Amino acid sequence: MKYEVFYGKGMKRVKERLPDLYESIASLNESVFNGTTLDYKTQKLIAIGIAASRCDSDATKKQMRSSMNELEVTEDEIIDVLRVVLLLSGMPAFNQGMRLLDEITSEK
Amino acid sequence: MKYEVFYGKGMKRVKERLPDLYESIASLNESVFNGTTLDYKTQKLIAIGIAASRCDSDATKKQMRSSMNELEVTEDEIIDVLRVVLLLSGMPAFNQGMRLLDEITSEK
Amino acid sequence: MKYEVFYGKGMKRVKERLPDLYESIASLNESVFNGTTLDYKTQKLIAIGIAASRCDSDATKKQMRSSMNELEVTEDEIIDVLRVVLLLSGMPAFNQGMRLLDEITSEK
Amino acid sequence: MKYEVFYGKGMKRVKERLPDLYESIASLNESVFNGTTLDYKTQKLIAIGIAASRCDSDATKKQMRSSMNELEVTEDEIIDVLRVVLLLSGMPAFNQGMRLLDEITSEK
Amino acid sequence: MKYEVFYGKGMKRVKERLPDLYESIASLNESVFNGTTLDYKTQKLIAIGIAASRCDSDATKKQMRSSMNELEVTEDEIIDVLRVVLLLSGMPAFNQGMRLLDEITSEK
Amino acid sequence: MKYEVFYGKGMKRVKERLPDLYESIASLNESVFNGTTLDYKTQKLIAIGIAASRCDSDATKKQMRSSMNELEVTEDEIIDVLRVVLLLSGMPAFNQGMRLLDEITSEK
Repeated sequence: MKYEVFYGKGMKRVKERLPDLYESIASLNESVFNGTTLDYKTQKLIAIGIAASRCDSDATKKQMRSSMNELEVTEDEIIDVLRVVLLLSGMPAFNQGMRLLDEITSEK
Repeated sequence: MKYEVFYGKGMKRVKERLPDLYESIASLNESVFNGTTLDYKTQKLIAIGIAASRCDSDATKKQMRSSMNELEVTEDEIIDVLRVVLLLSGMPAFNQGMRLLDEITSEK
Repeated sequence: MKYEVFYGKGMKRVKERLPDLYESIASLNESVFNGTTLDYKTQKLIAIGIAASRCDSDATKKQMRSSMNELEVTEDEIIDVLRVVLLLSGMPAFNQGMRLLDEITSEK
Repeated sequence: MKYEVFYGKGMKRVKERLPDLYESIASLNESVFNGTTLDYKTQKLIAIGIAASRCDSDATKKQMRSSMNELEVTEDEIIDVLRVVLLLSGMPAFNQGMRLLDEITSEK
Repeated sequence: MKYEVFYGKGMKRVKERLPDLYESIASLNESVFNGTTLDYKTQKLIAIGIAASRCDSDATKKQMRSSMNELEVTEDEIIDVLRVVLLLSGMPAFNQGMRLLDEITSEK
Repeated sequence: MKYEVFYGKGMKRVKERLPDLYESIASLNESVFNGTTLDYKTQKLIAIGIAASRCDSDATKKQMRSSMNELEVTEDEIIDVLRVVLLLSGMPAFNQGMRLLDEITSEK
C-alpha cells in the first residue's frame, strides 16, 4: 500500500501485532489516495500542508521526504505549500517547515 | 488582491481602520499566492485541507466557497481533499468538512 | 456498525456517495472499538475526553449524547472525564464541556 | 499527591519556587483524580488519549510511563487507547503514540 | 474570585454541584492572577491572545468582554493583541478575532 | 527588522532564497509590532503565551530567549505568563514552558 512507504517501520510493527487494524488502515489508505479527481501528488502536497500547519515535525518530515523520493516533488513546490501555511497558520509553522525542508535537502 | 475575495467584509474593515496592517497583509497575500510552481487552485485546495483539519468551520467554509465560486473547484475535488483530512486528522474533522460542503452545495 | 449510531446522518450520505470510503471507515471503526482489553464504554469515555479537550463542540456533543443514550454513561461519569480535561487542557475546554453537558441533560 | 509521580522533577521546582501555585495545583490535582465514579486508572487512560491526540510527545510519554509503572496498565490497554486516537485524530497521532509506546516498552 | 466574573454562569453551576472542584479552581485562579510582577491587565491581554490564537470563539469573546468591562481595556489594545495573533497563528485566527471584537463593540 | 533577531538564521535563508516573501514578512512584522497602544515588551509576552500554549517548544524557546536578551524580560515575568498558560491550556503546556525556561536560564 502507498502508506507503507512513508509510515514504513511503524506500520510494519502494526502489521505484525495488530493485523486486523493494519488491514483497516491499509484499506482506508487506499480509499483516501484513490480519489476520483485529484492526483496522488496533489493529495500529498495537501498532506504536507496539514502536517506543517500544526507544527507536527515528525509527520511533516515524513510527508516531505516521501513526496520528494517517490513523487519527485521539488523543493520549490514544497516552499509553495509552506507559503499557504504561513498565511493560514503563522510564522512559527512556516519557520519550522522551512527548517525541516532544509534538513531534508541537505541530507542528500 | 486575491484575498479580498474570500475575507471580503472583514478585510474591508481592516483596510479602513488599520491601513498599514492592511497593506502588509495584501503584500503577504500576493507573495503567498504567487508561488513559483504550484498554481493558485492547488494552493487553495491546500488551504481547504489546513482549515478543515483543525475543525475551523468559519475558515473552512470561506475557503470552500471561494474556491468553488472563483476557481471552479468541484465538489468531488473538495471531497478528495477531505479524504486526506480523514487520514491525517480523523473522523471529526472529516465529518465536519463533509457537513460544511453539504451546506454550501445545498445553498445553490 | 457502532459508528453509524453517533455519526448517523453524515455517515448515511458518505455511504450513498462514497461507498468505498464508507466501507473503509466502517472497517476501521470495527477495528478501533473491538479492542482486546478495554471495553466499548471506556473507549467512548476516552473519545469524549479527546473531543472536549480540543473544544470541538460538535464532536463532543455527539460523543456525550451517544454515550448516554447507548451505553448508559451517567452525567457524573462525564464530569469525571471533564475533570481530566481541566487538568490537561485548561479552563476553556472544561467550561465548554460542562456547558455542552448541561445542554444535553436539559434536553431530556 | 498523585501528580508528583508523573510530573516529578518539574513539580519539585514549582514547589520550591512557587509554593502558592504548587498548593493550588496539588489541590486541583486531588479534585480531578478523586472523581466520584470513574476510577483513577480509567482517568489515566483518558489522559493518555488526550495527550496522544495532540501529538504532545513529552506529556504522552509521561502519562504512558506512569500508568504502566504505578497502575499496571498494560501495553494492550494503551494500544486500545491509541485505537480511539486513530479514529478521532488520525494517523500521525496514532503513529507517534505507537512509537512512544515502543520506546517505553523497550526500555524495560 | 476574579474568575467568577468572566466564567460567571458556568462557574455558579460548578460551585453548586462540584464544591471541591470549585474550591480548587478558585484557588488556582487566585494563584494565577496574583503574579509577582505582571499586573492583572497584562495577564488578561495574554489570555485574549491565547484564546484567539486557537480560534476558540467562546473563550475569546468572554476574555475580550470581561477585559473591556472590568479593566477598561480598549479596542485598540485588543487590536494590538490580535496583531501578534496574526503573526503567530495566521489569518483565520486574526480574522475571527477581529470579527468577535466587532460584535462586542457593536453591542454597546 | 525586529523579527530578524529572533528568527535569525531561518530568516536569513528566506531573505536570500525568497526575497519577495521576505519583504512581505518584514513589512508584516513591522506592522504587527508597531501597535498603537501596547508596547513591544507586552506584545512579546503575548507571543510567549501563545507559543507556550500550544506546546510549540521551538517557537516558545525562541520567544523566551529573545525577550530576555533584547527586552530584559525577567524570569519572574515569564513565569507570570506561564501562570495564564496553566489556567487556559492545562498542566502539560505549563510544565513544558517551565522546563524550557529552566533550560534557558541555566544556559547563562
